[in-house]
Formats: sequence, C-alpha cells, structure tokens
Amino acid sequence: MKKYVYTFFNNAAEGSSEMNNLLGGKGANLAEMTNLKIPVPPGFTITTEACVYFMKHGKYPPGLIKQTNKAIHEIELFMKQKFGDNHNPLLFSIRSGARQSMPGMMETVLNVGLNSESVIGLQKQTKNSNFAYDSYRRLIMMYADVVMEKGDSTIKNLNIRVQLEKILEKIKQKNKYLLDNELNQSNLIEICNLFKKKIEQKLSKPFPEQPKKQLWNSIEAVFKSWNGKRAINYRKIENIPNNWGTAVNVQCMVFGNKGNHSATGVVFTRNPSTGENVFFGEWLMNAQGEDVVAGIRTPFPIYANTQNDLKIKLPKIYKELNGVQKRLEKHYKEMQDIEFTIEEDKLWILQTRAGKRSGTATIKIALDMLKEKILSKKNMLNKINSHHINEVLLPTIDYSLHKKLQPIAVGLAAGPGAATGRVVFCPDEAEQQYKKGHNVILVREETSPEDIHGMFAARAILTSRGGITSHAALVARGWGKCCVVGCKEVEINYQKEYFKTKKLIIRKNDWITLNGSNGRVYNQKIKLIQPKIKKNKLFNELLNISQSISQLKVRTNADNPKDAKTALELGATGIGLCRTEHMFFKPNRIKEMRKMILANNSKERKQAIANLLPFQKNDFYQILKTMNNLPVTIRLLDPPLHEFLPNDPKQIQTIAKELKVPNKKIITTINKLHETNPMLGHRGCRLGITYPEITEMQTNAIIKAVIQLKKDGFNPQPEIMIPLVGSLGEFLHQKNIISNLTKKYKIKIPIGTMIELPRTCLIADQIAKHADFFSFGTNDLTQTTWGFSRDDIGSFTPKYLNEKIIKNDPFHVLDQDGVGELIHIAINKARKIKPAIKIGICGEHGGDPESIEFLFKAGVSYLSCSPFRVPIAYLKSAQLSI
Amino acid sequence: MKKYVYTFFNNAAEGSSEMNNLLGGKGANLAEMTNLKIPVPPGFTITTEACVYFMKHGKYPPGLIKQTNKAIHEIELFMKQKFGDNHNPLLFSIRSGARQSMPGMMETVLNVGLNSESVIGLQKQTKNSNFAYDSYRRLIMMYADVVMEKGDSTIKNLNIRVQLEKILEKIKQKNKYLLDNELNQSNLIEICNLFKKKIEQKLSKPFPEQPKKQLWNSIEAVFKSWNGKRAINYRKIENIPNNWGTAVNVQCMVFGNKGNHSATGVVFTRNPSTGENVFFGEWLMNAQGEDVVAGIRTPFPIYANTQNDLKIKLPKIYKELNGVQKRLEKHYKEMQDIEFTIEEDKLWILQTRAGKRSGTATIKIALDMLKEKILSKKNMLNKINSHHINEVLLPTIDYSLHKKLQPIAVGLAAGPGAATGRVVFCPDEAEQQYKKGHNVILVREETSPEDIHGMFAARAILTSRGGITSHAALVARGWGKCCVVGCKEVEINYQKEYFKTKKLIIRKNDWITLNGSNGRVYNQKIKLIQPKIKKNKLFNELLNISQSISQLKVRTNADNPKDAKTALELGATGIGLCRTEHMFFKPNRIKEMRKMILANNSKERKQAIANLLPFQKNDFYQILKTMNNLPVTIRLLDPPLHEFLPNDPKQIQTIAKELKVPNKKIITTINKLHETNPMLGHRGCRLGITYPEITEMQTNAIIKAVIQLKKDGFNPQPEIMIPLVGSLGEFLHQKNIISNLTKKYKIKIPIGTMIELPRTCLIADQIAKHADFFSFGTNDLTQTTWGFSRDDIGSFTPKYLNEKIIKNDPFHVLDQDGVGELIHIAINKARKIKPAIKIGICGEHGGDPESIEFLFKAGVSYLSCSPFRVPIAYLKSAQLSI
Repeated sequence: MKKYVYTFFNNAAEGSSEMNNLLGGKGANLAEMTNLKIPVPPGFTITTEACVYFMKHGKYPPGLIKQTNKAIHEIELFMKQKFGDNHNPLLFSIRSGARQSMPGMMETVLNVGLNSESVIGLQKQTKNSNFAYDSYRRLIMMYADVVMEKGDSTIKNLNIRVQLEKILEKIKQKNKYLLDNELNQSNLIEICNLFKKKIEQKLSKPFPEQPKKQLWNSIEAVFKSWNGKRAINYRKIENIPNNWGTAVNVQCMVFGNKGNHSATGVVFTRNPSTGENVFFGEWLMNAQGEDVVAGIRTPFPIYANTQNDLKIKLPKIYKELNGVQKRLEKHYKEMQDIEFTIEEDKLWILQTRAGKRSGTATIKIALDMLKEKILSKKNMLNKINSHHINEVLLPTIDYSLHKKLQPIAVGLAAGPGAATGRVVFCPDEAEQQYKKGHNVILVREETSPEDIHGMFAARAILTSRGGITSHAALVARGWGKCCVVGCKEVEINYQKEYFKTKKLIIRKNDWITLNGSNGRVYNQKIKLIQPKIKKNKLFNELLNISQSISQLKVRTNADNPKDAKTALELGATGIGLCRTEHMFFKPNRIKEMRKMILANNSKERKQAIANLLPFQKNDFYQILKTMNNLPVTIRLLDPPLHEFLPNDPKQIQTIAKELKVPNKKIITTINKLHETNPMLGHRGCRLGITYPEITEMQTNAIIKAVIQLKKDGFNPQPEIMIPLVGSLGEFLHQKNIISNLTKKYKIKIPIGTMIELPRTCLIADQIAKHADFFSFGTNDLTQTTWGFSRDDIGSFTPKYLNEKIIKNDPFHVLDQDGVGELIHIAINKARKIKPAIKIGICGEHGGDPESIEFLFKAGVSYLSCSPFRVPIAYLKSAQLSI
Repeated sequence: MKKYVYTFFNNAAEGSSEMNNLLGGKGANLAEMTNLKIPVPPGFTITTEACVYFMKHGKYPPGLIKQTNKAIHEIELFMKQKFGDNHNPLLFSIRSGARQSMPGMMETVLNVGLNSESVIGLQKQTKNSNFAYDSYRRLIMMYADVVMEKGDSTIKNLNIRVQLEKILEKIKQKNKYLLDNELNQSNLIEICNLFKKKIEQKLSKPFPEQPKKQLWNSIEAVFKSWNGKRAINYRKIENIPNNWGTAVNVQCMVFGNKGNHSATGVVFTRNPSTGENVFFGEWLMNAQGEDVVAGIRTPFPIYANTQNDLKIKLPKIYKELNGVQKRLEKHYKEMQDIEFTIEEDKLWILQTRAGKRSGTATIKIALDMLKEKILSKKNMLNKINSHHINEVLLPTIDYSLHKKLQPIAVGLAAGPGAATGRVVFCPDEAEQQYKKGHNVILVREETSPEDIHGMFAARAILTSRGGITSHAALVARGWGKCCVVGCKEVEINYQKEYFKTKKLIIRKNDWITLNGSNGRVYNQKIKLIQPKIKKNKLFNELLNISQSISQLKVRTNADNPKDAKTALELGATGIGLCRTEHMFFKPNRIKEMRKMILANNSKERKQAIANLLPFQKNDFYQILKTMNNLPVTIRLLDPPLHEFLPNDPKQIQTIAKELKVPNKKIITTINKLHETNPMLGHRGCRLGITYPEITEMQTNAIIKAVIQLKKDGFNPQPEIMIPLVGSLGEFLHQKNIISNLTKKYKIKIPIGTMIELPRTCLIADQIAKHADFFSFGTNDLTQTTWGFSRDDIGSFTPKYLNEKIIKNDPFHVLDQDGVGELIHIAINKARKIKPAIKIGICGEHGGDPESIEFLFKAGVSYLSCSPFRVPIAYLKSAQLSI
C-alpha cells in the first residue's frame, strides 16, 4: 500500500527536506527540523499524492484513513494527550503546503478537536476559561467559513464569516467593549452558542461536534482549496502547474497565550537591514502569533539590553532559542527567519525559512558567511543578484513604506534607484532650476538628444512614451539615473504645464517621486534612503572577488570622462562602446554639425567638418586619458543626420539667424532628410560612405589624440568600430579610409565592426577575414530580427506579455531562439575563419544577468554595459565562471 | 616555339570557334567561317597571348615576326598579289578582337600597304584613280590618328584627325563641293600631299611609306589600344579582366566600291522585327560598308520584288549569298546578322554574328527553330528572357527612335512598358480626365493607398521619391502598368502644378512619355508600338511549353477579380498573395474602417467591423469565383492603422463632418497612431492580436464566401495567411481564432504564415509543426535582414551601386548571402519537422529570373508574382527544370 502519511515527532521524522515534492515545502521543512532535533510541535503530513488522488477520484486514496489514524495514535502516545478526549484533549492545526510557496492562497483550520465538552477539559487543564472558550469560538468561526462554506461548492455569496463577526460585534457593543480580549467566559459561551445557531440556520446543518469529523472535513477543505479561484489565478501568474496538488500538515496546537510563561515571537539569525551578525527579533508575552501581526501590543526585543528582553525575562528559553537559531542557520547555510511559541516554559519552533533582507544585508551576510566558512565562494556568489547590488549603489524608497504608498501611475522601470523632485516639463527649465540647486524631475512625452542638458540636470526622467531602450531609458541607464518610461497613463499638456493621470492633475513644481526599479510614480515627496558611499568596503570586496573569478572582461558604454571615471570606480576594465554622437550636441559643435548638413557643396561641408576636428580630438584625448592602459572602442558617427536639426519652428528660426541661412533652406533640408523609417535609413556606416570626410575627420581626431597622449606619457588603447555594417563592401570601404590614415601616421589601431543586423551575422565569416574585432549591438539586432521598433511596440507588447504570447520583452532579456541563434551563427562563422577574433557585446543585454548567461555560453570574449551595470555583469560572469 | 599566328584562307583555318580565348571572338569566328568554306577574305590572327606578352615586356614575343612573315607569304601565294608590291599590291585591314566583344573601344587601320608608288599600281589595276587615291587618303588619315598620335603616349591633345579634316574641308570649299565623292584625282593627290606635310610638321616625323613599317606599327597600335582610356573604362563597367589582351586580325582588303559589279550590304537570316523566316537585308552597289552607315545613299532590299533587288541585279551572287546565310544559321543554330562585300562579282563574307532582334522576333524564331528541329526544347527556352516577354505583352517605344530621343530625367524602372500622356498631379484630377477619355500620367512625390483611384486612372505613374518596391512601384507592377519611381531630378510644386527638372519646367497637361523598362522620362508625346494582342498565339505557345516543363507552379499576387483574370490569361495557376488592405479603401468601406479606428470602446469597434463583413464576403466571393478550382492565399490585414487616416487638414475636416466626430479627436488619434518606424511597428498579426475582432471578421467573410460559392456550384480553394508572424505564440493566437471558426462551420481551410522576418526563419521548425504552409515575403525580409527601409535607401544606394559596394539592389535581385541564407535555414528547419510542407514565395523576387534560379535550387514549392511577371517566372522555371 502506498504511503500517504509521514509523521514528525520525538526528534525523528519519516520525511526530510529532500522530499519537497511529496510533502510540500512546509511539510519537508517540519520533517527536516524534527530530524535536527529542533522542538517542533509533533504532527504528520498527508502527501501531495493523496491530494492529487482526491482531486482525480473525488475520494481518499486507499489506506489514507488507516495511516492517518495510526499517526494520530503515535502522536497521542508521545504527547500523552488524546485527540477527541474530553479531559486532556489533543488539538490539531490543519494547514496546506504546496511544493512551491503560495502564501495565503489556500486554507487553514486551527484548534481542530474542540467541542462543547472538550472545551471544558481544556479550561480545566489550562485553568484559563477565557483562553479555552476563545479557542473554541475561533474554531467555530474558522470551520464555518473554511470548511462548511468554502468547502461546499453549492453555497454562493453567503459569507458566513461576516455574519458571525456581526454577532461578535453586537456582544461587544452591548457590553461596551473595545477589544476582543475584554470578552469574559460567559460572553464567549454566549457567542459560541449564537454562532452555532446562526450556522445551522444559514447552512442548514449543524457545526459538527465530533473531532474526527472536524479533522477529515478540514483536510478535505484544504485539498479543495487547491482548486479555489485565488489559488488558480496565483498559479497562472506564477506558472505553477495545476496538477501538483497540495500536502496537508496536521500538527499539534501549541499556545503562547497560556499566561506569563507562554509567549510568541519572530527572530532573525542576523540583522535583515544591515546584515550584522547579531541575533535579532521580537517577542510578546502571553500572546498568539496573530497578536504580533495585529499590532495592538508592541512587541519587545529578544535582546537589546532592555528590561523586557527575552534574555532577561526567560533566560533559559532565550539560551535554548539562541542555540536553535545557530543550528538552523548553520544547517541551512542561510540567514533564517524563525517563528516560535513558548507554551508554559516549553519552546516550540513553528517555522523557519530564509529571511528576507535588504541588498546591503544580503551582500554583507554572504561575504561574512564566506569568511565564517559557512559558504563556499560559489555559494556566496549565488546568494547575490543584481537587485542587491543596485540597492547598495543607489537611493531607494524605504522598504517599510512600501505598503503605505499608493502609486498614481506605473510605467516601465528604465533607470535604477528612486528619486524625488519637483515636476518640470522643459529641459531648459530643468537646467535653470538645477543651477539654483532645486531637485527636479523632467516629465516629457519622449526625449531626444536635444534634451540632454535637461535630462542631465534632472534627478529623474519620466516619459509617457517609449520602451526600456528608448532614448530616455538608454541615457538614464548610462548615467545610473532613475527613469520611468512608457507611462501611458500620463497625459502631458506642455502648454498649460501639467500632466493628467486617470484621477489626478499634477502641475509644474508639484513634488513627485519615482521608483526606477519598479516603474512606480507617487504624487508626493518621499524621503529616500541614500547609499552611504558608492565605493563602500562591502561593494569593493564583492567586486574584487567577482573580477578575480570572472572569465569575461566587463567594459562599459561611456562617451565622456565623467561616465568613464564612474565606470572605472564601478569596476569597468575598458570601454566597449564609446558613442561619438553625443559629443556633437554641445552648442559650438552642433553649430558646425548643422553647417555641415546644410552645406551647399563639398567644400563647405569639408570646412564645417574640419572645424569639428579640434573638438573631437580633445574628446578622445580626455576619454583615452581617463581610461589609460585600457581598451576604448570608439564607434564612428551613427545616427541619421536629421537628429541634429530641430523640429520646432522657433528653433528653426533661431538656427537660421545663427547660421545666416534662410528659414526655408533649413525646412527644405529637414524635409529632404525626413525618413519613413529612420531606424532603417541613412545612418551608421551609410553616413561614413556617403560622407567619407566624416570618417576621415573622426579617424584623424583619434590619431591626433593618441599622438598627443603618447607625448604626454600615457598609453592610449583606442579601437575603431564601424557601425551598422551589413555587407563586406561597406566594411572594406570604411576600413580602407581608416587604415590609410593610420598607416600614414604609423599608428596601429584595431578596426572592427558592430554586428547589429541579421545579415551581418550571416556573413560574419566574410567580414572576420578583415576585422580585428566584432561587437554585437543587441538592441538594433533585436529590432531587425523581430521587426520591432523599440519606440513603437508599446501599443502591442503589453498585451503580448500579459497573454504570454511572448515570454519576455526581447529588449530586456535577450531572445535566445531568434537573436541568440543569429549570435551563435555569427560566432561560429567568425571563429571558423579567425579563431582568436575578439567578440564582445555592447547592447543593453550586456548588463542583464539572464542574457549574460546565454552570451557567456555562446562564447563572447567581453561584455560592455552601462556603468551601473558593470558590477552586476561581473557578478553574473563570476557566478558562471566558478 | 609558341604559335602566335593562325591563318585562315582557302577554306581552311588553323583556328576554330572553340579557340575564342586565344583568337578573340572575331578571329575565332573568321576561322570558323573559313572552315565552313564560307568565302572570307584571307588573313591571319595574332593571338591574345602575343598581346599579353607585348604588354608585359614591351616587345614582341620571340617568333612573332617570323610567323607573321610566313603567314603573309602564304596569303600572297594564294591571292596572287604581293604585300608592298607597287604593281599588284596586297592591302590589309588590321583589326582588334578581344575574347568578349568591346565594340568601338579599340582601334582599326584599313588599307595598310598603300604608298605613293603602290597607289599608282592600284589605280592601274582597278582602272579607278579616284578609288585608289581615296583609299590612300583614308589610310594616311587613319594611320596618323590611330598609329602616330594615339599610339604615342608622349603626344597629348593634338587631335591630328581634326586638323586633317580641316584640310579636306578647305579643298571642298575651294571647289564648292558638297560631298566627298565629288573630289577628283587631282584634288585627292593634293590632299594626300597636304596631309603628309601637316603630319610631318605636327608630329615631327613623316608618314611611313614602307608597308612593313605600316603593318607593324598598326599591329602595335592595336595592342596598345587595349590599354586605352575608353577600353579600360569599358572593361570596368563590363567586368572584363584587364589581363586578357586583344587578338589582332590581319585580313586582305576587299572593296565594294570598284564599280557596278562591286557592292556591299548587311543581311539577316530572318526578319529581326517579326521573326518571320525570310531572307532579309539591304545592299548598296559600288559602295563601301561605311557608306551604308553614313546614310547618304538609300540602300536597296536584297529581295522584295523591286527592280533593285540584289536577286535581280546580281542573281548569281544572290544565290550564293542565300546559300551562305542558310549554312551559317544552321551551323550557329541562331539567327545571323551577316556583313558582305562583292568585289567585282566575287562575294566576300566579312562578318557573321547573332542578330539583334525584337522580343517578338526572338520568341517566334526560337519557336520556329524548335519546329524546324534546329533547336532542342532546352536550347529554345534558353534563347528567351524576361525582356522578350515584356516586349510582347506591353506597349514599347519604337527601337528606331531610341537614338533620337533625349530623356529629360531618369528614374528607377519600376513598372514595365512605355506610356504617353498629359501630366496631372492630383489623383482626383487623374480620375476625372480618365473619365473624359484622356490619357494622363500621374506625377507625385510618392503615392499612398489614398491615391489608388488616380493611379488606376493614369496610363503611368511617375514619382520623385521611393524605390522599386515603393507603394507606387508595387501597385503599378501588380497592374502591369508603366511606372518610373525615385526620379530625383523631378521637383514637384503641387500648388502651382508644375514640375522642374534641371533644365525644364513641365506644367499640368503637358505631354510626357515614360519608358518603364529603363526609367527614362521624355518631354513629348511619342507614338508607341502597341502589342497586337495580350493573348497572342506565339505567347501562348511559349507559355504552354514553359508550363508543361516547369517543376514549380507559378501563382500571382492579386487582390481583385480584374487582376486575377488578367493573371489567369497570363498563365497563373493560383493566387499566392491576396492582400486584403486595398479592399478597405473604397469610400463606403474606409468610412467603416475609420469608425473602427476612432471607436471609443470595444462595442463601437465591433459594430464598425461587423459593417465591413458583407463587403469582405463579396470581395472574397468574387475573387474565389474567378480563381475557381485554384488555390487563393488570402493574407489577413497587414498595414498599420494610420494608413487609413489622412494627413491633410482639409481631408481631416471632411472626415470629421462625415463621421460626426470632432476634428480634434481625429488629430489626436493620428498623433496616437504616429510611429517612428511604422515598418517595425503595430502592423501584421500584431493588429490581429490586439484587435482579434478583425481576424474574426475576415475569417467569417472567407467562410461565408466559401459556403455561398459551394451552394452556387463552385469549388473555392482559399488558404489563410497570417502576416508578420515572428514567434510561435503569435501564430498560435491567430490560428486559434481562425480554426475555432472553421471548425464551427465544418470547413477546412489551410492556415499558414508569411515568413518576412529574420526571426521567423530561425524558428521555422517551431511554427512548421502547426502551419499548413509558409510563404516568404522577401520584400520585408530584405528590409529587416539588411536594415534597409525601401522608402529611405534612395539617399545612399545609388552610391553603393556605383562604387560596387553592393552588387545589386537587394530589392531587385534576391540577396543570396544574407536573405538567401535565411531562406535556406527556414526551409531546412521546416522540412525537418514537416517534409511535405508547402513553401512558396510572394515577394517581388518571385518574378525576377536571377532570384527564381536561387529559389528553385533552395527548394520552394511555388512562386507568386505580379500578373505580368507570371509568364516570365514560368519561362525561368522551365529553363531550370529542363
């Protein structure tokens, strides 16, 4: 006969933590603790298989009743109590417990075994009639609700619990009581009787007094709750299969409310906020677990040198509990969150689990446990993830506030951390206010390179359009700046300077707070938790370990010395993508850039470009100097030229005056440069081929910077990357221009290309013959592989993700089947021709842990990501390397 | 010693037509004819190897002089004349002849061997002093130009020919002559002397009187002309290697101007215009070849029942010539273009080559030769190409006019054939004029679906923007309508109703003519050659043969019964792409479509869509009826919704009134639907997923049409194609909607998808499991694989093609390395899962012969192309199948 019942008592359990699938998480955990000789209230677990059988056949599997009776009998012998006995009654809790935690989704019944006779026994036994009748009252209420109503699918919209609560309230009102615990024995007896009457009247059957009936009906109710509406919805969201079933844990009741030698509490093995290795927690004398949660009484600390410390009040118990927590942490190699009850000087451990903690605490605990030899290096690394690192490096909203805050809108989490500031709508105004020392948040429909100064000045950026790789998101992430994009609920009125959400109007200068880690927007000023130091000891310790283990180098995407410096502090060992377009947006430069675009002939164009050379030379000088000795991959000009011209009629007029050209000419040029699909238009190397003088100027600027740096005693390591190459002809055309110049100055600079088009992957062998390196631009590669414009997919991807038509946003997590397959093809083709060719990746995915795992296995040589993702990438790479 | 000289005389040549590489095309041809016992003027060929040696070493290869002397001696014996003899001089022509024809790119010297003494011998021998001195005069002029000036790289910008011509003119003026042939002996002697004086004065050396010197210097000049500027440029364009070298043909001079028993002419073995199997050509008595070209005298027909027929005047020669032409055609299995000279009743064949002919003639001749058993089926098919078929089906500009016409602008050849009409700029006006019976040509910057009625009404369409797969091009090609796009020289002023080219202004109602086969635009009304019948006997004969041999089925892209009918006539055996978007542009429908887009809620939207159902049902009914028994692949709605809304403020107002919604709402909707890159935005199945009611309506319309057709006794064969699928989830979502409905009505309709994204190719195996068929949409696949927006690449692809950065426009000829590789991957993956899955192609490449060859080999099951390309596709497929 199949075994459906696994007991745990007397320091010996039939199950163990290995048997999670059969016993559920809770059951396996209780068995494990019992075997560890932790004082767990005795009990037994009915397996998930029994539940599956019940769901399938509508009846208990053969042997279940017999095995259950046997288990009860064994526990009765051990506890010296009897289930259903009137004088010395054994009471049970009946709890669900699936393979994977589904908190609050299924049912629980407590105090099973009480009836109008045994309640007297309990009263006598505990000498506490209030306690006994209160326990009985609770059983009746819970049973009626969970077993009699919810367990019966024919009953709808009755809500017996509410009706019983009304009775309770009425008695309290009648007696002018405020709190439940003011009720006396006769009140409680009256309530129990009224409850039973109401139940029989409403449910057409009486509350069962037979303990066995209570027990089996409760077990059945837990089985059935697996298919309750809430549980089904939860499983859908969490991708939990419907055929797993739940286990049922039947456990002796223990009571912390039996007087001053009884108590209840929660402890952590280390401080969950700081990670400090101290025993930490709270307790309440003469109370049940729910009293702690209810918040009516303020709990005392376990140990904090106060009069109410558990250590002072119940020193023996404290000592035992301290021993238990140490054993549990050592056993699970993990900081534990432990629930306990003390029943008349006897310590019972109800539950232990991995404790939730802050990012800082996670890192500190992991590093400490490594030193304490509890964790191996590998296990230490695996305890930490990207969120923990973000939390250490960036301001965050206090965890304790989370429940109290109500967001007014939710967008896409695009730039990490949190920020608070006054709303402005105009980049210029953002800059002015910033100069006055104000904190502002820039709110735009979307941003463009023209807005850079305002974005820089703002504490955070909120856009109503665009995806997580829109301009705003890319720039913000690059700076490690808080940013929420694609917040569709936000309707902006630029003219009247306000934005609307469904319910509210937020005007200029109103305070808002953004949480860039989950996309939430709040209409108030919220005090943020500031990171102590960016370069803190903890962080550096972790970074050093990650770097020493990582098989991949991690570079950063940065295009100015400030970002480069930040990235260096954050562990970057090179620049993998130095865009050159932002360099042209400073006032002097954009003027020359515009002159170039508006040139009437090649001579004028060349002159304008020549004027840009000294600026570019200095740009490269500064950045190469900052990254001395480390590789810096400079990408030649990439964006379509129209991005350098304004759209606003006023700005056009200003420019016309400045450049002394007619308005009309600018408008004509804008129209001429207009493209239906600029993403697929005249950009990347297509620019360098039609205007070779741009490629020449940029190469010259790099060469001149290198010569100067060498003179000044530095060791610059530039690499030139040709963007958007799709054919061998394009690569050779640009390489030719570059190498003619480098040869002239006898300087060696590696020349490579960005792989950002499907075609480039398919002909990677052809190009590998002539290229020194490749770098996957996975943003654009994702756009073309999917045919997704990252600026436009907001209209359908929410539905795609909701209905699971696609698993992930491919701009967030690298699409392995499509884009990944192309990456495989490209790497294989390239390495066949040139086995040692350096292949990197510089798209947004370079900082995403799941994507890094794929890229690591695919065989890239280095990653490049925004500065604040560098330590995350190093961590992930170390996790994979070890 | 290596053999450098190959003789041909006395019906025996040392070479043959196989030795093309060594003897050049002309030399091999002369040898071949000699061996065929065709009376070719005796001579010898100096090999290309001799030229290569000379170019490399700057001197003749060892043995060349000796071999040449030997050959001359043999020919002298045979001709009973002597080279350099004063009394009976043998004269030579010296001509170039490369492996591949380079017409007019290299040099020729005639009459070599004449000097001031032998000219007297020639005069006595021919009893024609004018002829003798004229020959001498021509030698001096040609030799000075070709050998003395062009053969000497130290001389620059002298242009001796012009200076000599001035002398000639002066003498003519002095004597008041109009034509050269009015010059008498003493004039000619004077001219010869003046020529020689001028030469010595200008070139500092005398005209050489020694025949051997003339000969060798002429040979050297021909060698050197291989590296002349013109020749080098020509080779660059035609991709001819520079190291091939040219052969030199030294051949006895024969003269058609020795009196009335001498003559010259050109004949064709069949009629080059109609293909009729008649001996056809022209001749001139007492004339040289150049006289025919000069057009001073009108030639007579060879045989046309006139008094001047060669057959009447020189019957013996006619008979001989007729025999020769028959032998040559039979030998070469090809219609021949033959040049001949009659010298004193002796026929000499100077040259034979495949004759240029019209498309109709090509097809007729090929089919006739098949019947005459001259050609096998395979060889017959290989004689014909797409241009020939186009010519049969469409109006064309008369070939004879080509040289006289000067285009005012040149754009991209986008729709075949030619058209002439008055310029209009507005689609509505095009329609009005069309209704009045006028021929108009619609000139637009670019077209949109809103313009369809005007495009339909116009004879042809000219756009200043867009590529060969722009909207205008696609629509025009679908209709077989003449179209020129991307004509950048054309600047349109819509307001003032004119367009400008560099030099001209063309106003509304001015006549222009377009040649859609080469993109030329002419500012005049040109009479066109109209095809006799679309369904002519010739065409059908060819089509039947092609269809019976072709291993692939060819379907058409058509979305209305008219096009479908045309395609059926042109041989289509199904519809491979029935777009459904054009169906929504008729006034009643677009109104409902707009209502749907502007709907405030799902109910309004559903109502508007429901109103479209009867229209759609009728659309499908008609098209399925037309294509009875044949498969019709219907693609669900594809374009982004904004295409159904106007941009013009006036139109917005009109619509607002019509639909009774505020202006502002329409503008807001337009703004909301605006996309940065619509090509990569909310379209294709992304629409059907966000608005499942569209998919439902279209499926219902198909089902209802099928039910009605079956009732009416037809056998409809619809297939439903889901557009722009990029993931399995998308396909299953749409398939689910469709198959739920087909199941409901118990109708079986194959469901497949268009493969038009790189990702779809990479996951073709996943989708193949669930799909009945695939169809490659190679237009969009090319766009995403290359990252090329077909609307925007006009700014750089001209440079790409000019500089050979890319070989072909990938929208014109399928890119085998990139797009082709993806097609290979997709077919392999799909067939691995479902070996029998039907895979087609419905992009523009389906009608391009080079692309068809690739697709055939890649293993597609069918092609689909615009109606007028169907016979071309069948021909190409037959050529590949045989």
